[in-house]
Amino acid sequence: MANNTPSKNPLAPVTAAVSKIAASNVVQETRNLLFHHIHNTKESKEVFADFVAIIRSKPFSKLSQVEREIHRKKLEDTCRKLLTRLSRVGLKYEVRRGSEDLIFVFILCPLDRLKQECERSRIHDWLVGARIRDIDENIDGPLSDAERLRLVHDIITNPLSEGGANINPGLSDFELIEGFLPLQDRSYNEDWMIAWSTKWMIDKDDLLRLRNHFGEKIAYYFAFLQFYCKWLVMPAIAGLVTYYSGAQYSIPFSIFTVIWSVTFVEFWRRKEYELAVWWGVRHFSRIERRRTEFREECFIKNPVTGEQVPYFSPWRRWLRRTLAAPVILIFSITLSLSLLFYIMIEVIMSEYYSGPFRDQLIFLPTIIYCLLIPTLNSFYINVAKRLNDYENYETESSYEFNLTQKICVANFLISYLSILFIGWIYVPFSTEIGYFFQELFNRFGFSMTIKKVGPERLVTELKYFVLTAQVLNLFMELILPYLIRFGSFSMKRIKNNGATKDGGRNEDESAFLKRVRKEVKLPVYKIYEDYAEMVTQYGYVCLFSTVWPLTPLFALINNWIELRSDAIKICEHTRRPIPRRADSIGPWLDNLVILTWFSSITNPSFIYIYHPDNKVLTSPLSVVVVIALIWFTEHIFNVVHYVIKQMLEALPSAADDLVQKEEYELKKRLLEKAGISSGSSHHEDSDDESIKKREDSEWFWHSGHAPNIEEALQEIMQDKTE
Amino acid sequence: MANNTPSKNPLAPVTAAVSKIAASNVVQETRNLLFHHIHNTKESKEVFADFVAIIRSKPFSKLSQVEREIHRKKLEDTCRKLLTRLSRVGLKYEVRRGSEDLIFVFILCPLDRLKQECERSRIHDWLVGARIRDIDENIDGPLSDAERLRLVHDIITNPLSEGGANINPGLSDFELIEGFLPLQDRSYNEDWMIAWSTKWMIDKDDLLRLRNHFGEKIAYYFAFLQFYCKWLVMPAIAGLVTYYSGAQYSIPFSIFTVIWSVTFVEFWRRKEYELAVWWGVRHFSRIERRRTEFREECFIKNPVTGEQVPYFSPWRRWLRRTLAAPVILIFSITLSLSLLFYIMIEVIMSEYYSGPFRDQLIFLPTIIYCLLIPTLNSFYINVAKRLNDYENYETESSYEFNLTQKICVANFLISYLSILFIGWIYVPFSTEIGYFFQELFNRFGFSMTIKKVGPERLVTELKYFVLTAQVLNLFMELILPYLIRFGSFSMKRIKNNGATKDGGRNEDESAFLKRVRKEVKLPVYKIYEDYAEMVTQYGYVCLFSTVWPLTPLFALINNWIELRSDAIKICEHTRRPIPRRADSIGPWLDNLVILTWFSSITNPSFIYIYHPDNKVLTSPLSVVVVIALIWFTEHIFNVVHYVIKQMLEALPSAADDLVQKEEYELKKRLLEKAGISSGSSHHEDSDDESIKKREDSEWFWHSGHAPNIEEALQEIMQDKTE
Repeated sequence: MANNTPSKNPLAPVTAAVSKIAASNVVQETRNLLFHHIHNTKESKEVFADFVAIIRSKPFSKLSQVEREIHRKKLEDTCRKLLTRLSRVGLKYEVRRGSEDLIFVFILCPLDRLKQECERSRIHDWLVGARIRDIDENIDGPLSDAERLRLVHDIITNPLSEGGANINPGLSDFELIEGFLPLQDRSYNEDWMIAWSTKWMIDKDDLLRLRNHFGEKIAYYFAFLQFYCKWLVMPAIAGLVTYYSGAQYSIPFSIFTVIWSVTFVEFWRRKEYELAVWWGVRHFSRIERRRTEFREECFIKNPVTGEQVPYFSPWRRWLRRTLAAPVILIFSITLSLSLLFYIMIEVIMSEYYSGPFRDQLIFLPTIIYCLLIPTLNSFYINVAKRLNDYENYETESSYEFNLTQKICVANFLISYLSILFIGWIYVPFSTEIGYFFQELFNRFGFSMTIKKVGPERLVTELKYFVLTAQVLNLFMELILPYLIRFGSFSMKRIKNNGATKDGGRNEDESAFLKRVRKEVKLPVYKIYEDYAEMVTQYGYVCLFSTVWPLTPLFALINNWIELRSDAIKICEHTRRPIPRRADSIGPWLDNLVILTWFSSITNPSFIYIYHPDNKVLTSPLSVVVVIALIWFTEHIFNVVHYVIKQMLEALPSAADDLVQKEEYELKKRLLEKAGISSGSSHHEDSDDESIKKREDSEWFWHSGHAPNIEEALQEIMQDKTE
Repeated sequence: MANNTPSKNPLAPVTAAVSKIAASNVVQETRNLLFHHIHNTKESKEVFADFVAIIRSKPFSKLSQVEREIHRKKLEDTCRKLLTRLSRVGLKYEVRRGSEDLIFVFILCPLDRLKQECERSRIHDWLVGARIRDIDENIDGPLSDAERLRLVHDIITNPLSEGGANINPGLSDFELIEGFLPLQDRSYNEDWMIAWSTKWMIDKDDLLRLRNHFGEKIAYYFAFLQFYCKWLVMPAIAGLVTYYSGAQYSIPFSIFTVIWSVTFVEFWRRKEYELAVWWGVRHFSRIERRRTEFREECFIKNPVTGEQVPYFSPWRRWLRRTLAAPVILIFSITLSLSLLFYIMIEVIMSEYYSGPFRDQLIFLPTIIYCLLIPTLNSFYINVAKRLNDYENYETESSYEFNLTQKICVANFLISYLSILFIGWIYVPFSTEIGYFFQELFNRFGFSMTIKKVGPERLVTELKYFVLTAQVLNLFMELILPYLIRFGSFSMKRIKNNGATKDGGRNEDESAFLKRVRKEVKLPVYKIYEDYAEMVTQYGYVCLFSTVWPLTPLFALINNWIELRSDAIKICEHTRRPIPRRADSIGPWLDNLVILTWFSSITNPSFIYIYHPDNKVLTSPLSVVVVIALIWFTEHIFNVVHYVIKQMLEALPSAADDLVQKEEYELKKRLLEKAGISSGSSHHEDSDDESIKKREDSEWFWHSGHAPNIEEALQEIMQDKTE
């Protein structure tokens, strides 16, 4: 067990390099000054803290006397409790006023305390099977920036019973605390942005460095984005070739797309697992902390560790989920109908209607959309959150998983429904729909013209979603935040001439406080949005590539930029995220699987309907024929999916080998300690001659029996010749 | 690690009882007599051997001089090699002539050697993760009959490099050896048959006893049969109610059947895993021995253990499987066409044809069937075996898995195709088919009558398969072997007056040899056939219950008997199987899943076609409508299946807890040994008052900082009131 062989660890050199900085966070505590930190790389003296607790108070000057007293009391209680708890768990703190309504508590974890927490956490991980390596080997191993922050955050938020300070921002006693903010590491951010913007491909080491800085949860997003980007090259080229060959609704390209989707998802599943093993977060779900909001039914004995743990019956949770299902269903239907209503109005206005006020009414659909859809969506998100709270999940990841799945229903409807409607219903039945509206309009005395709508309408719609949406998104993510900040900065300058009262005791501190104020103003990084964007885009690629073969190419271009712009976003436009662990991309994998399955329906269906060699089928019964055809192709897809999955499973996985090897070696060391040899007695000689020579030697444990072979043989042979 | 707590092991008492007999196999070796064994329960002295090697020689008297010499030489070589190898690995043997053409080598493993092998095997199991419990705890634990036989068989057949004797019956040097036979334990068999025939339900202990005697592979079959039997009660009752309520093609019953199937399969998957954990065979596949027939491409280093192991590329295997696929496809089509041809002929003869020789020609279809189908099938089985050999699987279980899947294709076609044909094509289109044949017959000058065929034709067909097949099967399994043995016994008695020359040296030995001869004459137990029967029957229940709701009831009755008759079969009508390990029912689970999925197609389809409220749809387009409807119901089924799977996964599994607990405790013991405390520092007091009291005490690692809370608070409050 004392077998200290760091050279065997493939990640060791990188981790060591990264953690050199972190490990040197030996803090100079200068009594009444803020924590100072010697950056050994740049030799610059810099103010430093692990976390900043942000306390938001109301500006006293604007309160009445009574209110001020109440608020003062509350603030004092909160702060007293916070500081007591912090010092109780061994953390250092410094308090500074940030501005009139902001108080910063700078928190620093001394190295000894950190080591202690690290040891506790690693042993715990190892005990429940999340770490594969032997405890002794790693206890003094390097500590990454992400792990340090995670551990400190654990100390702050863990329940008292587990040795934490149990400070949960926004809840009960700590209502005034807005949150804990880890400060951006500006030199890391600079290096990161320079590195990524100057290279074509993000490699494994880059990801590892990212994981060491921001934690596994964020690293998984970038790993997925990079993996997806790489995989997009193939369909992008195939799509380009198809597009320039002039083939419309190409069958080979369509088959390629579906098979590509399946393979991509299955390979990612593998990759994800490998990353979990390499990053040491396998079985992470087993050790995940309970959510503070989790409400137990009763306490039961944990069957594994024997401790008393809070318990909530899974049956009851299923009952609650059953209650949620109709709500989601009703909302989906409402949203679908609203979307269809919008599309119909849009279609009528742009293509059929030629009555009075046409120039004004043309904006009607957009207005309806902007009023209706975001309202509905945000209302639904609210409802979904409540339902999810009610379902009372035990861990953050299961909570997030279920919330994401609920919200995604709306997301997918908004993203895909209009394309599907136009492709499946509007274009094939445009004449029927046209006549219907003509009749309707005539009855009310409006005039209208019927235009024949061709498949190009579908391409236009798809192009709009793929191109416009991507450009818009990039603008919103990258350029808008600058504009907003610039705007609010100018506003403020006008208001109070740029001078903010803060509690800085010297210039260093004031500069530091200014920087902290700036970071506090930034929004929290929401990983959900980034994933949703990527998965929705994957949907366009796998569902609709057949319609417009350039889709994957534009997705590829977008993602190449996205990969870098997201890096900028995290560095510049959001607060630094608190490092969190994860062992997968969670709910998104399931969404990828669902989209992939759905692609086996959309791709053939578009070919059946639009392929130039097919006659356009428009009678109601032909719909049924298309469904029947889809039935067949879908099952072929299922078989292909199964085979691909089987093939991948048959391939040996390096990650699995690693896990088994570590386990095996641990056990072997144990055996050696216990003095039991695990090797069986090997006899390499398969030659009977050599055995004969040794026949009478001491090798045989039973003496006197072996020479009887001749006797026995005689018995056999004699009996025969009788 | 030395924590010897056998009382914690829930299986210990039972195992101990069973193994008391086995452990007392201290053998009295009386030089030139056969092994004797004191049965401590009955105090009867009984001749005993672990295994009998059966060597089949040609009768010398019937050979020419030259042939006799050649055969003599070969026999002597084989026997010499066998005996040398046996004694080399430390096994004892006795040789006796069984009859003119049979030589028996009785093999016995001394207790010391057995212990040594047991230790080696258990450590190996533990190292690769198949055993969960700590090594020390179990090394002296009780040894079951099955484990003893398995270990002895391992010693005999393991490669020389692993310390075995490498004797593989039927291969190269050991061509004359027919096999190794463990002798039936008559007292166990008697107890077993009495126990099972006198109780309604087989419980967990019964299964454990079975597993301890016959090994996991056979125990899994009975566990499955018992589990299936229990689960059949529900649909049997539901079917009975539906039947007597007179509802035809009842929709509720149909829905019930489909949901029941899904739930059954998912629950069995869970049960199977639990059994694997309880029986200590989890991850068994990791330690499974390579097949002797496995041919390596090259040797590579095992990534886990670092040993050089034979390797065959999975890609190459997949290539070979790809080659096999068209063969299987072509055969399936041939078989399907033959079956359809048979059904058509049968239909024509029994329902349409009224020309000359009708009374003779009515037997034509049966003759065709008997000539065609079994020939095709056995030909296919041969081809499948060759293909499977060619695919070069590494372990017995993967070999068996793939062979089973190949053969099952034919099995399912023969079992279900005619029912499906009648239900889906013949009955709905009987008029069209009738007219077609009428025209055809008229052209050739035959006369025929068209009968309208109703849904009752389908019920008849199903009843035939369910009832006749079951009765026939029971007869073949249970009564036929008696008749055959009685027949051959009479034959023999006439031939040589019952006296067989054998090498028995006294009456005890002669009686024993007679018994062995009797057992050798029995066929080998083929577990494949029993599984195939059950799974096929499950198919009738889940696919066709809608057609005839009594199907599950008759299946239940059949299985209740089958459970007992199979016990009799193993005891009386087959050789005792060599105990083998298994961690699941293997390929059959996949077959259950496939059938379950298929049930989501057949059940709705029969309802769409036959439900009294539906109009019988016979136009070609209505087929398409039915397919479209099926498409919808199938997807509803998929969702239901997914939900049920999720619900089951959310339930905590006792087996998982057991595994984790064992791992956890092992690691905890290790930690304690290493002197590291795993418990975090617990502070139970969540009360801030008590913290305050301790504020100045030595608990805080940093002195002088904690009292500054007041100071810090002042800073906050003062700044505010400025």
